[in-house]
Parts: sequence; structure tokens; C-alpha cells
Amino acid sequence: MQMAEQAAEQAAEQAGAIRTVAVIGAGSIGASWAARFLAAGLSVRVADPATGAGARVAAFVARAWPDMQRLGLTTESLEPALVRLSCFAAPAEAAEGADWVQENAPERLEVKRALLAEIEAVLDPGAVIASSTSGIMPTPMQVHMRHPERLVIGHPFNPPHLIPLVEVVGGGDTSEATLALAMAFYRRLGKRPIRLRREVPGHVANRLQAALWREAVHLVTEGVASLADVDAALVSGPGLRWALMGPHLTFHLAGGEGGMAHFLDHIGPAMEDWWADLGAPQLDDTVKATLVAAMAEAAAGQDVEALARARDAGLVEALARQHRPAD
Amino acid sequence: MQMAEQAAEQAAEQAGAIRTVAVIGAGSIGASWAARFLAAGLSVRVADPATGAGARVAAFVARAWPDMQRLGLTTESLEPALVRLSCFAAPAEAAEGADWVQENAPERLEVKRALLAEIEAVLDPGAVIASSTSGIMPTPMQVHMRHPERLVIGHPFNPPHLIPLVEVVGGGDTSEATLALAMAFYRRLGKRPIRLRREVPGHVANRLQAALWREAVHLVTEGVASLADVDAALVSGPGLRWALMGPHLTFHLAGGEGGMAHFLDHIGPAMEDWWADLGAPQLDDTVKATLVAAMAEAAAGQDVEALARARDAGLVEALARQHRPAD
Repeated sequence: MQMAEQAAEQAAEQAGAIRTVAVIGAGSIGASWAARFLAAGLSVRVADPATGAGARVAAFVARAWPDMQRLGLTTESLEPALVRLSCFAAPAEAAEGADWVQENAPERLEVKRALLAEIEAVLDPGAVIASSTSGIMPTPMQVHMRHPERLVIGHPFNPPHLIPLVEVVGGGDTSEATLALAMAFYRRLGKRPIRLRREVPGHVANRLQAALWREAVHLVTEGVASLADVDAALVSGPGLRWALMGPHLTFHLAGGEGGMAHFLDHIGPAMEDWWADLGAPQLDDTVKATLVAAMAEAAAGQDVEALARARDAGLVEALARQHRPAD
Repeated sequence: MQMAEQAAEQAAEQAGAIRTVAVIGAGSIGASWAARFLAAGLSVRVADPATGAGARVAAFVARAWPDMQRLGLTTESLEPALVRLSCFAAPAEAAEGADWVQENAPERLEVKRALLAEIEAVLDPGAVIASSTSGIMPTPMQVHMRHPERLVIGHPFNPPHLIPLVEVVGGGDTSEATLALAMAFYRRLGKRPIRLRREVPGHVANRLQAALWREAVHLVTEGVASLADVDAALVSGPGLRWALMGPHLTFHLAGGEGGMAHFLDHIGPAMEDWWADLGAPQLDDTVKATLVAAMAEAAAGQDVEALARARDAGLVEALARQHRPAD
């Protein structure tokens, strides 16, 4: 225990010493990460080969800044923060002098491997490389690395500058020191990192999301309820609770004084019946066409941009008021 | 279309004429329903054979009242509302003169059938009987009824006085008029009813919840992450969004300009891979013991009562601020 505490203290100290972050790939995830890193007072070196990438990132940061101020993530004004933002075409340029690399390149293993080699050629040996990948596992990414021990998954939930979750996953060669540092660094940013004990496809949150959506697709395509009503069932029912507490704690409280044990005795048999009846649709052409048509009907001409803005405003409010469960 | 509009208008008119509700069974669901009906200005006749049931319901209503006032569900003060609450030992006594019956008896088909016969013997032929059942489907409930056309499921999400969702489900003999009236009546209460097109085990919300929890149990029992981290992944990630919009709209927006169609083309293959990898645990003794132990560790001695109070306070805040998507 004392060793673990010492290691955690050391990781927190190392995390506190990080000054410069390289953000590789400035799509929507990369730009959002850049905003959050700047809010934490870090210098950010973005790499993106696209013309106008630097201006796009700066514009994203400018739009994100008031929300991050509202959430207390920064008290700085925008202008001095933007001075710490620089943009380069080549990943190796951005990685130079970085203490931390957040990689957001396209989701193809060969692209990631080539990129890692390019970055490692210039990167300080002590710097961590964290990948935002949702679809690739860490072990295949690190096999050709010079320092595979410093490669870790730091998978955010979109948009990273607002949503607290980061999934931290090590591969076969990732060192314990890297994992501890990743947890400490994301905590320092005010994020809520969780640590996976082993790599699985989809990490944790996307698997939970996939499991729920599979049944949602089943209910719509089988005609049990309209798409709008299935969505409403979540938002007006369990979704309300899940912004406050996870499924296990929800059911623990549903068990009253007897907690989870009582819940399992009381509801367990019904739960197993429901599990047995859940659907297992495939996303074939018919299902896809059904979903696209049902979504168009439910959206009823509402503007995607306006809906997305309303969602982000709602997220900021929800985060400002979120009951933070004890870790 | 004009006929449907006329029918909806007629249902709204009938719903507006409902004055007296019988609440059969005054456990936590029944008491919470009673509170919401009183807040809507209705007279409530509760049936519960337990000693002290009337006082328990009144105490529940008194605790619930400030939250319902906060949410704008009533502007009345508590005392005059409580004058409209009466309590009886026998269901038939409570049902006398009721325009609407909300049934919350134990989840056993034979109990429900006997109760329905008892109620129908005294009930006005035009009155609807809505069952709060989560586990029983409407068709088997109505087979021996005198007026099976008036039996409908009106399944709330706990606690009904706060959570908007009501799942409306008809059986084989339920009339269209009853279904339309149920939708109109729950809307009149300010709730968010959804209408199922056919009866399925678990209705909609419990199936979505079961699907997600199955994967959550899998991840915990397989040791991918701790129970606390699986819960945190939901609360700090997708759960935040699901209090604002359902899974389909979430993915529609994730598709950007291209909406659901683009999302399916882009993420569909990864989604199918995740679906194929989802777990299918059973709640056997080993799994139950693992969950109970993991929950005890995650709860770390926190008081169930205090957590439940914090959840309800959080729910009230979330409801007060919930972005209401267009129906």
C-alpha cells in the first residue's frame, strides 16, 4: 500500500511538471483536446497537414472558451491562452519538446504505426504518447515502437473539452509508470479517467452505449415503438438517473436497505427473462434504411446544427450541476 | 387524419373530465402516484389493507410536495390538497366513483386478476383501469374481465411523482379509445407517455436498461474494470448526453451534416464488431456474489438513504433544467 501511495504521489508530481502537449490531428476531437489543454495552462503544439488547420483550431478554442470558463476550468481570458497555441504541418515538428502527445490520427493501424515512428524519432524518451483511438487496441499499436512502454490509450468522449470521461488502457508493453502518469495527468485536467485492467474492443463506455443502442434498434425495427418514443423512453426515464449515478449504484439503491443483494433476489429473475428476450439486429441495408427513414421522421426537419448547439448548452448546464459521486 | 385528430380531441376532453382516481396498492409506487395525482388537482382514493397505510401515504405526499412545487407541477399548498386524499382497506371501496384506476398490486397474475374482478364489480363502466406493472403483459390480465377494452398498462418509472416517463401498452382487447385516453390523461398530468405498438416483456425502458446493465455486469465480472469505474464511465460519459437526448438522436448528430446515414456508414462496422463482442452473463450465484462484493467495495460504507436523497435532489434539478426535445 505504501509503495502504491508513493507511486501515485510520484505520478502526480510528474503530471504536474507537464508543460507542453502535442496534439496530433486537428479534427473535432483534436481541436477539442487542444482547447482543454490550453484551459489547463499548457502550451499546445498542434499537427495537422490541412490548409487553414491552425485558424480552425483557434476558432474552435474561441467558441469553447466561454463554456470552459462557465465550468470553472479556466479563469484566464482567451487571448493570452491563444499565445500558447502553435500549429505545424508535420507531426514530428509538433512533437518536438513535448512532454505529452495526444494522438488523434485516422483510425487505421498502419497510419498510427507510421505516425508513432515519426514522432518517436524526435520525442523526448520520457514523454508519454496517448492515443484517442476508440477502435484500435494498444498492443498492436506498440509492437514496433522504440519505447512501447510509453504508449497508452487515453480515449475521450466527444467533445473532450466538456465530457469528463477518459478511458485509460495499457497494452502488453505499457509500463505501470505510464498508466499511473496518464491517470494523474487527466485528473490534473479535471477529467474523470477510468483505468481498464485489460484491453477489450470498444473499451467500456462504447460497449455500454452499443449494448443499449442494439436494443433500441431492435425495438424500432421490430415496430414495438417509434424511434422518437424509444428515444423519449430513455431521456424521460433511465437517462435522467444515469446522469447522476451508474447502473450498479442505481440498482443498489433500488434494493433499499438490502441494497444490491436484495435487488438481485427481487428483480434478478425478471432481469434474466428480459436479457433472454433482447434483440440482436444486424446493420444490414434494410435495417439501415429503416433507421434513416425513422430518424428523418422523428427529426421532422429540425436543424442538426441547432440541435447540436442545444445539446452542448444542455451539457454545460448538466456538468455545472452534476452531483459528483465519491470516487 | 381528420378522424385521428377528432379522436385525439375527444380523448383530451375526456381526460380533462377525470376528477377522481383510485390508487390500488400504496407501496412506494402507489404513494408516489397519489402525490402526482393530488398535485394535478385530482381527488385520490387509495386502497391498501396495511395498518397505517393512510398516514404513510400522507407522509409521502408531504415529503414529495416541495419538489413538485419546485417543478411547477402544483401551485397549491399541501393542506388543501391532502383534504382530497382518502384511504380504504378494500380495493372495491376505493374504486367506487373513480374515473380512473391506477393499479399497483403485487406482481402476480392471479392477484391482479382477482383484484380486477373485485374492482370491476363496483366501477363505472366508462372508467379506465391502468396497471403499473413492469412484469406482466396486458393480454393475460384482461382475459377474464367484463370490460377488457378498458384495461391498459400505464407503467411509470420510479418515482412516478418525479420521473416523466409512462409506458402505455394495450393488450389484444384494449380499445383504441382507452389507449388514446391514457395518452391524453398522462399528458394532462405533465408526464411523458410513450405508446407501444405491441406488448413485449419489459416494455421499452426496462429493456434498454437491461441491455446496458447486462454489458456492465459482464465488464465487472470479467474484471475489465472495477464496478465504480464502469458506473463512472456511464455517468461521466454517455449518461450525461442521455439526460438530454436519446441514442438515435445522439448518433444522428454524431453523423454531422450527413446525420444517421453518415453515422451508419462511418461507425456501423465498428458498432457491429462491438455488438459481436458483448457479453451475455447469467445471474448465477457466483455472479451475484461478485456483484454484491464489488458494490460493497464501491459504496465504501456510504449510507443508502443519504445517496437516495442526493439522487432525488439531483433528479429535481435535472428535471427543472431538462431540455425538452420536441415530441
